[in-house]
Amino acid sequence: MDFPSWMASIQQRAESALEATLPGADIAPARLHQAMRYAVLGGGKRIRPLLCHAAGSIFGAPAEDLDAPAAAVELIHAYSLVHDDMPCMDDDDMRRGKPSCHVAYDEATALLVGDALQTLAFQKLAARLPGVSAARQLEMLALLATASGSRGMAGGQAIDLASVGLQLDIGALEFMHIHKTGALIRAAALLGAHCGKAPPEALERLGHYANRIGLLFQVVDDILDAEASSETLGKTAGKDAAQNKPTYVNILGVKEAKFLAGNLRQEAHDALSSFGASASRLHELADFIVDRTF
Amino acid sequence: MDFPSWMASIQQRAESALEATLPGADIAPARLHQAMRYAVLGGGKRIRPLLCHAAGSIFGAPAEDLDAPAAAVELIHAYSLVHDDMPCMDDDDMRRGKPSCHVAYDEATALLVGDALQTLAFQKLAARLPGVSAARQLEMLALLATASGSRGMAGGQAIDLASVGLQLDIGALEFMHIHKTGALIRAAALLGAHCGKAPPEALERLGHYANRIGLLFQVVDDILDAEASSETLGKTAGKDAAQNKPTYVNILGVKEAKFLAGNLRQEAHDALSSFGASASRLHELADFIVDRTF
Repeated sequence: MDFPSWMASIQQRAESALEATLPGADIAPARLHQAMRYAVLGGGKRIRPLLCHAAGSIFGAPAEDLDAPAAAVELIHAYSLVHDDMPCMDDDDMRRGKPSCHVAYDEATALLVGDALQTLAFQKLAARLPGVSAARQLEMLALLATASGSRGMAGGQAIDLASVGLQLDIGALEFMHIHKTGALIRAAALLGAHCGKAPPEALERLGHYANRIGLLFQVVDDILDAEASSETLGKTAGKDAAQNKPTYVNILGVKEAKFLAGNLRQEAHDALSSFGASASRLHELADFIVDRTF
Repeated sequence: MDFPSWMASIQQRAESALEATLPGADIAPARLHQAMRYAVLGGGKRIRPLLCHAAGSIFGAPAEDLDAPAAAVELIHAYSLVHDDMPCMDDDDMRRGKPSCHVAYDEATALLVGDALQTLAFQKLAARLPGVSAARQLEMLALLATASGSRGMAGGQAIDLASVGLQLDIGALEFMHIHKTGALIRAAALLGAHCGKAPPEALERLGHYANRIGLLFQVVDDILDAEASSETLGKTAGKDAAQNKPTYVNILGVKEAKFLAGNLRQEAHDALSSFGASASRLHELADFIVDRTF
């Protein structure tokens, strides 16, 4: 199967798993459930489920076992987008080409949507996976929580907020992004690998790959934000610069940022070398992330 | 040990467990961690940890095993208070006798504090408990998630928001409270019982007790809100009436609400009858909840 077909098939799997996980739009409280579905379904590239499935396949994890962790990570990601878009945070009215959750519904509902999506992520991952031992599943839950919390994604968002208007150097910017987006991307890959009972040293190499991919994703996002129009992007473009947020493009300029992206891509490929052909989807994902821009 | 001494000792245990679970105030991102500690430590009656320990002790669960689920439930409760107090929700400036989290810090921080406290609850409960099997621990995580999410506590808050200005009958009000506060109170008791490997029929009776206690707690809260001053209450009094929210006192009047509280207390006691003397702390807790008012 070629990469675009594989990607479409996993995106479809992820959409179906999310659809089945989210409570129906007619179940009480119906408006909350409608808003949760609005925030999650029918949008997004599902990068994290793609990473989860690609990493799991290296270690022979059955796709059926990967659906739950893939959905759980995507629910955490979706909750973070809903909360990040709120007026007290990044105040963004558009997301994935449609009004943000607090615009389409209201702020109180968006707050509860994010809260309930986070809960649902842990609920999903707590349901028994047939091919994984209960003890390993608890490790997976701990991994997802660590990646999402105050020393992972939520902490990264706090650092991001505190950085507005500051002159960061590349090291400080990298520290922020490793938390804000990197931690969850790393968790996506490692959760997939756990489903395939990956040994510790393989998890370490995969973690390094995911770390590079996470930064790569952010560098590319900054380049997209600086260069693309809102229409192509599906969210408000030029927002970071307007909000005086530090970005790779601010600090390095577009040309250097693209050079950095090239280096990160190479390091990601190198981290996979010992996995051989079984890691081909992960190689392709690294290239896909870069090729969004140039 | 008499009840006040027992209560003080469990409250102290709960405080220590929360203190140890929360990241230190000097760990980056420091302001977020300071705000998380501000929102959780040094306040609250710790009703949920008390229920967790009291229920666990019926089935011989060691107190060391009960600390983690007690802390996890209290973290969920604390997150919900931080988010509920925010301007887009109940807009309350006082909590536990001091400024609410978004007043003491800012709205964006309060949003992240709530998010990260929820994550920490699941992280805490995912760490291996020595006396509980991994499979049962997964059940406990699923139980906590179900109680907290869109079909439990968060859903109850959504129903509450949707009820402002509406004429609810007692049935609809009860439906709201069973979700908004009852689900988590029930989870607190059941998690404790799980640590003691309680059989299904015992869990059912305990669930019925907790259901009555949850409603009792809310009826008493409504009476307190109508009668007490802000100073005694530690939060803004008369708020529900001012916000035109349906309460037991609105619908029934104070006298009938007190009569209902008496009935709920009796039903709670009755639900415990088969446990004998081992449930004495749960009996005392039911009385304690009522005796807050009259």
